Amino acid sequence: MTVTIIGTGLIGCSLANRLKETGFAKKVIGVDNNLQNLQTALALGWIDETLDLDSAIKQSEVIVIAIPVDATMELLPGLLGKLDKQVLMDVGSTKEIICGSVKNHVKRGRFVATHPMWGTEKDGPESVVKDAFRGRVAVICEKDNTDADALELVEDIYKTIGMQLVYMESGVHDVHAAYVSHISHIASYALSLTVLEKEKEEDAIFELASGGFESTVRLAKSNPAMWVPIFKQNKENVLDVLNEHIVQLRKIKSCLEKDNFIYLQELIENANKIKRILK
Amino acid sequence: MTVTIIGTGLIGCSLANRLKETGFAKKVIGVDNNLQNLQTALALGWIDETLDLDSAIKQSEVIVIAIPVDATMELLPGLLGKLDKQVLMDVGSTKEIICGSVKNHVKRGRFVATHPMWGTEKDGPESVVKDAFRGRVAVICEKDNTDADALELVEDIYKTIGMQLVYMESGVHDVHAAYVSHISHIASYALSLTVLEKEKEEDAIFELASGGFESTVRLAKSNPAMWVPIFKQNKENVLDVLNEHIVQLRKIKSCLEKDNFIYLQELIENANKIKRILK
Repeated sequence: MTVTIIGTGLIGCSLANRLKETGFAKKVIGVDNNLQNLQTALALGWIDETLDLDSAIKQSEVIVIAIPVDATMELLPGLLGKLDKQVLMDVGSTKEIICGSVKNHVKRGRFVATHPMWGTEKDGPESVVKDAFRGRVAVICEKDNTDADALELVEDIYKTIGMQLVYMESGVHDVHAAYVSHISHIASYALSLTVLEKEKEEDAIFELASGGFESTVRLAKSNPAMWVPIFKQNKENVLDVLNEHIVQLRKIKSCLEKDNFIYLQELIENANKIKRILK
Repeated sequence: MTVTIIGTGLIGCSLANRLKETGFAKKVIGVDNNLQNLQTALALGWIDETLDLDSAIKQSEVIVIAIPVDATMELLPGLLGKLDKQVLMDVGSTKEIICGSVKNHVKRGRFVATHPMWGTEKDGPESVVKDAFRGRVAVICEKDNTDADALELVEDIYKTIGMQLVYMESGVHDVHAAYVSHISHIASYALSLTVLEKEKEEDAIFELASGGFESTVRLAKSNPAMWVPIFKQNKENVLDVLNEHIVQLRKIKSCLEKDNFIYLQELIENANKIKRILK
C-alpha cells in the first residue's frame, strides 16, 4: 500500500517508520512545506520520495495529516474535496473543531478523525523514536460519520503498530485530552517559567536539577507551533482544568501559610491515589 | 570500613548498596524503627546486620542518617553527643534548620550536612536502584563547621559513588532546593489532585494517559511521610516559589481568556529556554 504523510515531523515520520517496518506501507510519500524536514526525512529513510500534494494523493491509498491542528483545519476541507476513494486521517490532539469543520462535507465518509496518544517533547524527523506508539491508546472519533471501509483501514493501521483502539465522540475526547495531556503541558511550561524567573543564575539549576525536576519540566521543551493551536482549539476545556489546577495549588499554599500540615498530609495522600491508576 | 545506615528506605539502602559495591564499606549495619524495612533490607542484602543504635555507633566509622527530615531533627543532637571520633552525615532535602539545630553543639565538627540530589517517587528497601546517585550532584553545607577529617571522608564517599560535589551555605541550599526539587513535587501533587478531581471516571485516565502525563505526575506518587516535613522545614522558600508558580499559571490562563495567543506563544518560547539548561 502507498501512504502519503503530510507533515514530516516527529509524529508523521515515526508513523511512517512503523508503517514501513511492519510492511503495512510498501511506499511512503512525504509532503511538507518545510523543505528542510522533507529532505531530512528522505535522507533518514522515513519516507521514500517527496511529491507535491496533488500528485501524492493520486498515488496513495491512505493520506495522513500530521501537521499542527491549526494547519490541519485550513487544509482539511479542501483536501477532502480532492479525494476519490482514498482514506484520509488526521492525528491531531484536538478533535471537536476539526470534526466540525467537515461535518457536512460531501466526502465526510472518507475522513477518519484520530488521536494516537503518543509523543515526546521533541519535534522534527531527526527525533523519530523507533517502535513508537506501541502499547498506547489511539482514539477514533465520530466513527459513525466515517465510511466502513475507511474506518476499517485506519483500525488496521493502529492495530498493526500495536495500539489499542478507543472510540469517543469528539467533544468527549477533547475534555479528556485537556485532563490527561494538555494540562500537563501547561503545568510544565509554567514550572519552567517559574524556575527560570527565580533562578537567574542558571548554573545553579544545571548543577542541582534532580531527576524529579527533569521529568516534571520535560514537556516544557515542547514546540509552541504545535501547542498554541491545541490550546486555542481546546480553550474552554483547558481553561476549566487550569482553573481547577490553580485551586489545588492554592489549597496546598493555604496549608503552608496556616501551618496546617495535617490537611497537607491528607492532600498528598489523595494525590498518591494516582498510583492506583498509573503504575 | 563499617558504616551504619539509620533508615533502611530507598535512599539509605541505595547508598548502602553503592558503598558495598564500590568496596568503600566492608560492612553495613542497618538501624531502623521500621522492622519490616529492616528485615527486607537484610533479606535483599543491602545491609549485613541489624543492631540497636548504640551498639551500631560503637562499631562504625561512619553513620548515615537517612530518615525523614523531621525525624532527623529529633535524632541529630542526641546522636551527635554519643559520638567519639565517628563521622555523622545526613542526606536530607532541607539543610538550614538541620544545621541550625546543632550549630553550637560541642561535637558539631563530627557532623557533615549533605544532600545528594537523587531519588525516585518510590520508597522502601524493595525500591533500591542499582548504580544510584552516579552523575548527580551532592551538596555539602556549612563545611567550615565540620572537622577536616570528617569532611574529607564524606567527600570520599560521594566521589566513590560517582557524584559531583557542590558546597553551599545551608540557607542558599534551601532556596535552590525549593526551586529545582520541592516545587516540582508540589506541582505534581496538584496536577494529580486536579486530574483525579476532574476525572471521576478513572478508566478514562488509565486508557488515555500518555507518556507526557505520566512523567509530569510521576512525583505525585511520592510518600507524604518524607515530603510533608520537607515542606514544613522549607516553608518560606517553598511558599515563595509556589506564589511565583501560581503567577505564571495565571499569566497562561489570562492569555487563554483574552485570546492573546501571541503572548501565549511568547511565554512558551520563554519556557522552552529550559532546553538550554537541561538537555
